[in-house]
Amino acid sequence: MSSKPVILTGDRTTGPLHLGHYAGSLRNRVALQHDHRQYLLLADAQALTDNAHDPARIARNVIEVATDYLAVGIDQAVTTLCVQSALPALAELTLLYLNFVTVARLERNPTIKDEIQARGFGRDIPAGFLCYPAAQAADITAFRATLVPVGADQAPLIEQANEIVRRINRQAGRDLLPEATALIPPVGRLPGVDGRAKMSKSGGNALPLSACDAEIAAAVQRMYTDPDHPRASDPGRVEGNVVFTYLDAFDPDPDEVGALKERYRRGGLGDAALKQRLAGILRDLLGPIRERRAAIARDPDRVRDVLRTGTAQARRLTEETRDAVQDALGLFRL
Amino acid sequence: MSSKPVILTGDRTTGPLHLGHYAGSLRNRVALQHDHRQYLLLADAQALTDNAHDPARIARNVIEVATDYLAVGIDQAVTTLCVQSALPALAELTLLYLNFVTVARLERNPTIKDEIQARGFGRDIPAGFLCYPAAQAADITAFRATLVPVGADQAPLIEQANEIVRRINRQAGRDLLPEATALIPPVGRLPGVDGRAKMSKSGGNALPLSACDAEIAAAVQRMYTDPDHPRASDPGRVEGNVVFTYLDAFDPDPDEVGALKERYRRGGLGDAALKQRLAGILRDLLGPIRERRAAIARDPDRVRDVLRTGTAQARRLTEETRDAVQDALGLFRL
Repeated sequence: MSSKPVILTGDRTTGPLHLGHYAGSLRNRVALQHDHRQYLLLADAQALTDNAHDPARIARNVIEVATDYLAVGIDQAVTTLCVQSALPALAELTLLYLNFVTVARLERNPTIKDEIQARGFGRDIPAGFLCYPAAQAADITAFRATLVPVGADQAPLIEQANEIVRRINRQAGRDLLPEATALIPPVGRLPGVDGRAKMSKSGGNALPLSACDAEIAAAVQRMYTDPDHPRASDPGRVEGNVVFTYLDAFDPDPDEVGALKERYRRGGLGDAALKQRLAGILRDLLGPIRERRAAIARDPDRVRDVLRTGTAQARRLTEETRDAVQDALGLFRL
Repeated sequence: MSSKPVILTGDRTTGPLHLGHYAGSLRNRVALQHDHRQYLLLADAQALTDNAHDPARIARNVIEVATDYLAVGIDQAVTTLCVQSALPALAELTLLYLNFVTVARLERNPTIKDEIQARGFGRDIPAGFLCYPAAQAADITAFRATLVPVGADQAPLIEQANEIVRRINRQAGRDLLPEATALIPPVGRLPGVDGRAKMSKSGGNALPLSACDAEIAAAVQRMYTDPDHPRASDPGRVEGNVVFTYLDAFDPDPDEVGALKERYRRGGLGDAALKQRLAGILRDLLGPIRERRAAIARDPDRVRDVLRTGTAQARRLTEETRDAVQDALGLFRL
């Protein structure tokens, strides 16, 4: 047993990952993987909770997302990559935990409320969607994770998982399962290239990790800057200027970004020069990722092998936890 | 593959079975087991949906209920006895099906509405309880059952399961899963010995299958008859008279019961004679069951072996169905 803190993280496999994922989570995972015991869950079962009409897309993107992980530098020797739907113990724990949470409590979860509204479900919420916080509690506890990287808007899910943990522990009469801490990234969500708050493939404002130089140039070209700054000599606004937001996120020289902001505010720095700088930085960032991605994608069997190995390991761990929970609650064991 | 119609049935393992179970389901199962492919599910996972506070009781009663099954004449050579919580594919299918049913639809289910009221859950319904119709759909379809014996009050659950089947089949683009038919027994529910509609251990008006002759005599003695019939010579009421209800259910000579009803209505037949007849019939019925039960209970390892064998068989079948559903929907397979 490793004594490193255990991280559980992952993505719904709804599509290939993009620069927003890189900024918000992927590069953190690469940085954290050596000092932590990291499990990376390809959450295809969770993705189905609001995509039951298109299961093939969810399936197809398991390999895509795994390829993204390896391309950005996730090292399968230290990070375990595993497929949620291939871990039956997660489903067993989910069903068990659903008995320890009320419908009213699930409906009160702020994240679920927001997401129900964002998806326009109204009264027709798939039951699986309402229940997914219990599934997430199963994921977190099955891996005995104590650190779960999430966006600030997802923190209520960790609180809900911890409530379930406390109810299970009370029923078991001991501290069987650990509570988890939300690891909220210091920088906020990267906006889309059009300036909208959320970068997403379906929103058409995302830069995929596989973007070529021409796509990068085109995306940077259409980036929202300051509409009241048509000439380089005019003073410009830095706040809400997507190019600066991206420079803050990716420029390796923050001092220089500070100086550029100063000049932009004062007047005398045009969007063209700024965008050229950003395009260069993104080319340097995404170029090697794109090349590694292409090389990995030429051998999908290797990706599948990585998932098989990781999932087999995750299977042993999650079944151990399931057994421990069943025994601690005094459930029947054949 | 057998071409016999497939029956799935079973019981929540909340306590040992009683005479009400015998009249309503057990004797039918014994009669049906040779002409049907019968699976008998010890529904410990479902029992937890409203007993999460007392999992040990649910666990303890798995062996009790299995012992009851064998004692009444369930033959493990033709009926497969299996434990729900030891079949992970049922949990996997349940979570999948929850994506194909809305919360609103589950809340509208008349059986669930009645049961929520009966249990006094109010707004604090355990999520697992609201979701159990999807779990039942998983049970039914995993065994590819087409006949499901249920009380009339449970028929909406079969309709709900069939709705899920139709949604899955539509998504799969073919008739992957069969719809099921509710097999509603011709005779209604056996009332408690006190005349209340439902016999239950917790209601204190049940006769357990293990009842000894003295318990049988005492139960029959306190049976509700006709309070306006204090003397044998008075005319008496047959309707609502629990002794006659039980004679209808268990007397091997229905013609004689008809003649007794005639005499009782006319006047000239006392409760004492009637109760004596019923006590004799119940002694003849329960005596051999009690003896077989005692013999079986002396060897719990044998019961456990029966469950192990049946569950292993059920595991293969339910995992085959899970694989078939996952493949037909195009889900990811490692």
